[in-house]
Amino acid sequence: MLAYRLIERKRDGGRIESGEWHALVGAYVTGHVPDYQMAALLMAVFLRGLDRDETSALTAAMLSSGATLDLSGLPMPRIDKHSTGGVGDKVSIVLAPLIASLGVAVPMMSGRGLGHTGGTLDKLESIPGFRTSLSLEEAREQLERLGCALLGQTSEIAPADRKMYALRSATATVESIPLIAASIMSKKLAEGLKGLVLDVKRGSGAFLPELDRGLELARVMIELGADRGCPVVALVTAMDRPLGRACGNALEVEEAIHALRGEGPPDLMDVTYALGAEMLVLAGTAAAHQEARRAMERAIGTGRAAERFQAIIEAQGGNPGVVDDPAVLPQAEACDLFGAPRRGFVSRVEPRAIGRGIITLGGGRATMEDTLDPSVGFVVTAKPGDWVEAGEPLATVFARNRAGIDVGRAALRKAIVIADEADPPLPLVSHRVTGRGAEHYSPI
Amino acid sequence: MLAYRLIERKRDGGRIESGEWHALVGAYVTGHVPDYQMAALLMAVFLRGLDRDETSALTAAMLSSGATLDLSGLPMPRIDKHSTGGVGDKVSIVLAPLIASLGVAVPMMSGRGLGHTGGTLDKLESIPGFRTSLSLEEAREQLERLGCALLGQTSEIAPADRKMYALRSATATVESIPLIAASIMSKKLAEGLKGLVLDVKRGSGAFLPELDRGLELARVMIELGADRGCPVVALVTAMDRPLGRACGNALEVEEAIHALRGEGPPDLMDVTYALGAEMLVLAGTAAAHQEARRAMERAIGTGRAAERFQAIIEAQGGNPGVVDDPAVLPQAEACDLFGAPRRGFVSRVEPRAIGRGIITLGGGRATMEDTLDPSVGFVVTAKPGDWVEAGEPLATVFARNRAGIDVGRAALRKAIVIADEADPPLPLVSHRVTGRGAEHYSPI
Repeated sequence: MLAYRLIERKRDGGRIESGEWHALVGAYVTGHVPDYQMAALLMAVFLRGLDRDETSALTAAMLSSGATLDLSGLPMPRIDKHSTGGVGDKVSIVLAPLIASLGVAVPMMSGRGLGHTGGTLDKLESIPGFRTSLSLEEAREQLERLGCALLGQTSEIAPADRKMYALRSATATVESIPLIAASIMSKKLAEGLKGLVLDVKRGSGAFLPELDRGLELARVMIELGADRGCPVVALVTAMDRPLGRACGNALEVEEAIHALRGEGPPDLMDVTYALGAEMLVLAGTAAAHQEARRAMERAIGTGRAAERFQAIIEAQGGNPGVVDDPAVLPQAEACDLFGAPRRGFVSRVEPRAIGRGIITLGGGRATMEDTLDPSVGFVVTAKPGDWVEAGEPLATVFARNRAGIDVGRAALRKAIVIADEADPPLPLVSHRVTGRGAEHYSPI
Repeated sequence: MLAYRLIERKRDGGRIESGEWHALVGAYVTGHVPDYQMAALLMAVFLRGLDRDETSALTAAMLSSGATLDLSGLPMPRIDKHSTGGVGDKVSIVLAPLIASLGVAVPMMSGRGLGHTGGTLDKLESIPGFRTSLSLEEAREQLERLGCALLGQTSEIAPADRKMYALRSATATVESIPLIAASIMSKKLAEGLKGLVLDVKRGSGAFLPELDRGLELARVMIELGADRGCPVVALVTAMDRPLGRACGNALEVEEAIHALRGEGPPDLMDVTYALGAEMLVLAGTAAAHQEARRAMERAIGTGRAAERFQAIIEAQGGNPGVVDDPAVLPQAEACDLFGAPRRGFVSRVEPRAIGRGIITLGGGRATMEDTLDPSVGFVVTAKPGDWVEAGEPLATVFARNRAGIDVGRAALRKAIVIADEADPPLPLVSHRVTGRGAEHYSPI
């Protein structure tokens, strides 16, 4: 009867108390509340919302449904970064070894791609032998030794979130700000962090395209962190076009390796440095953003960051040779250039069309059960605002065969729009949000 | 993916097309759409609503999910009556044999009690031997012979409704006007009716207490009937106090038998005649309401109506002696009078408190699995507006034992309020609603 009463109350716009959230989430994890009751509640929450206290109580209930990563014995500060998801977003793969090489522990627990966006786990697993299914014990040991572990959400952490997330994916209740915030924070708070940096994507390729919704999500997550002594800083970054050039699992790992060696595309580096500077300042390792940026540039310039990635890959069973020779990664059988259909300005490079193109090529998931071809994807060199001549190469398609090339070209024809005029793209990093509110971002 | 897309669209306030309802309901009945997706959709429907075309399409989809009762060979017109449910509402048991005795076929498919209201099936089953689980074939045969069958919803009729109703009961999505209307009409339209009379209860004991919600339900059901060539007339009747005096399964059957013999309480008779007159006029058996009322009074006065009930009971395996001697019904072990705690006006006889009292006595259901004691309940002689002296008997409690008497008294102390002044109760029959709109009811 508890679940029924709570559904009824939320349906009518009422509040669910902290003890009720704990009882409900506990009963759901043990199977005493069936999926259909939770589905009705989640839809009522989607349409009626949760207030701050409810979101905090739900997060706490999900967090306490499982184990936490006890890192209290670790000498280094622990900082993590989370992105709301985008296309071409390989920042985590660059940032985690880079920040770890500067003496900060990064217990990075990531997800798989779903929908039009990729997932860090899928990308890492394109490295031959790389294993992301670490136990909490393995992760703790590796964090002590290397300052970084790149792992998937284990079955020990927040089992309620895993079950609820699968249900939300099947019942169209994903895009709810309190549910997104509680889901992310229940996992991140289980990492015992000293601070968390949030990359909130905005623009047509983001899950929450509108700026005000992104800022609202940032605000809710900052409050959830504050409730449990974990400072959260959010940067709002552009997802009206892919980040960097490479889109596709192995292609993105290759680009991340180039970035760690100092050869990354400028937009990827700027977002990486902006997020990394927040991490280093939260950790207390740097006093200010400029100092932090210089430290990161040094770690890349001296090769320390790339070496740390190599050590992490080796520790997780992958072929460390990939850092020196990315050709170790799975290679597509076919590739071909895609030229501009006419002269003009590149007015749009639509991330959703690119992401869906990767799925069509076999490199993304339509359902959680799909297996991936890590080799396929796109390298899109054209950026919104570029002037191009007819026939000028805008992108390269990587596919399994010639038929795949045609499929990829069709996706690019939809994704890349050439016009006589081009609206300015969104600023790469537009806002910085802390407990004191949102402000326009000043580049470092 | 169909279910997901439809949930998403309804969640955002969009429309679901006719073909989509059919595909969805079909896939739900066969188990291809899981309960949790349907639960999320039902909550979205609850909060976003359905327009006329959507409600009609959903009704049609639920109707076509099962078999229908083919009564086209029957020489008599077929008319049914449906009540939205109340406490002490035994009208169906009086009306079905009464109208059948006047040459109209009444294929009355009823439900069980749930929540604070009783169910016609539970009441009828207090008659020793009475069997309500008729097959469609048995019902058809009995309708031909006796003009009436009193049966439960068979598994053949509208299986989608049965499955969805159980899900709605568990997910707090019952009180939605389009879902209520579609559920009722998908079953009633399966009876191949020439007309349907609806008793829409209003007041504190009704599922939709507010008049405007009751009128809205009537309007939606009239439209659904019109869409499929079945005229619907609705009367709005009072459920701010129990109907008649008897509340409890066997007690209500006994009162219904008294009514069929011309000894029913005036409020029960007035509602029965009002609804019956609409049935006879819809059937074409009477030209006007007064003529219909006289015909019904004659059928009761001559004993024809009671004889028809006797024949129906016999046909359905029950002990027909009950009509001559209601003592054949299960008798409570203990009974006691309940006196007025003070002098004053009876200001309220609260149906929900009476209904919940019956459940506490063991005569109602808290869950669908509960078994009933048919003998227990109340006979409440006090009516709102009566002046009573302290100690004057207001009701009788029927229970299993002395402890039950105390439980029953406690329920009556909550239900019956005595005060220095009394607001006038709701008019017994207040509105008549047809395809031309709602009008105030003129007593016949």
